[in-house]
Amino acid sequence: MKGMGLLLIAVATVAGVVGLLAPPSGHAHEAAPLFVSQILPGYRDWKLISVAHEEGDLNSLGAILGNDVAIDAYREGKRPFPDGSIIAALHYRYTSSEENNKVFGRAQSFVPGAPTNIQFMVKDSQKYAATGGWGFGHFNVSDGRPGDEVFMKTCFPCHQQAKASDYVFTHYAP
Amino acid sequence: MKGMGLLLIAVATVAGVVGLLAPPSGHAHEAAPLFVSQILPGYRDWKLISVAHEEGDLNSLGAILGNDVAIDAYREGKRPFPDGSIIAALHYRYTSSEENNKVFGRAQSFVPGAPTNIQFMVKDSQKYAATGGWGFGHFNVSDGRPGDEVFMKTCFPCHQQAKASDYVFTHYAP
Repeated sequence: MKGMGLLLIAVATVAGVVGLLAPPSGHAHEAAPLFVSQILPGYRDWKLISVAHEEGDLNSLGAILGNDVAIDAYREGKRPFPDGSIIAALHYRYTSSEENNKVFGRAQSFVPGAPTNIQFMVKDSQKYAATGGWGFGHFNVSDGRPGDEVFMKTCFPCHQQAKASDYVFTHYAP
Repeated sequence: MKGMGLLLIAVATVAGVVGLLAPPSGHAHEAAPLFVSQILPGYRDWKLISVAHEEGDLNSLGAILGNDVAIDAYREGKRPFPDGSIIAALHYRYTSSEENNKVFGRAQSFVPGAPTNIQFMVKDSQKYAATGGWGFGHFNVSDGRPGDEVFMKTCFPCHQQAKASDYVFTHYAP
């Protein structure tokens, strides 16, 4: 009976620990994703990783910048990215430049129009363990507001397809 | 006769001075343009000015970076750009990303392919007085060689169309 009592205490203790670790609405063995809650200071001064254009609904022209930790990891081919790496994607409306087209004599020039959003990936293998060690952030430029939870929960499932490159799609442009 | 002799000497002297000033194949009153002769060190670490896509023959996706003098001038709206400003344009082949398209489920993603050329504009109002105070540079990435003289002489006539913005086409992306 004494042994049984200890077992119950042990079970209760484990349940309590699991309860503490579990998110309010999640499964005990699956932590709720945490997101980057604020625009990170200084990102506009970071170095260039690459550029990108997305057609379709996104219709964006973008620049992907990295803080020094991320840039060093890219240049040294270090994977996974070390904690402290931050990648920022600055997105703008993909816009035909009438000014440049006049000079070229034909419509061929596309430049950033209004900025639309800024996205971040922040590497912290402890804090963001539930999402591959990356915290995802999305902020609308118009009002500075972050993406809502439903939207934010789409980040990691998509980035999981780039697991081989530590969940990062962007390659470094030389 | 003595007067005539002095006049001839004067004419010969003027002709000689003009001959010294004139470029080998140029007009006496038009200095030969000088070009940037070497790839400038450190440009890949400079801050982002903007990004751009050109269709047509150029078929490029590019990043425009600036050294600190140029970035400060952009951010403060300082025109003309002060001496010491350098703008670098990094051009890459505009390339469809099969990797990204698989994730999106459709062909919509364009990224930098092979780097094609690096172009510079260096502000030195004395040295490059003949071309609006800007020295132009163009270097092929494949072999590091600069553009030939015929090609380089096309830079300024085109940039003259942006005289109102100190001969610079690229606007700063916020």
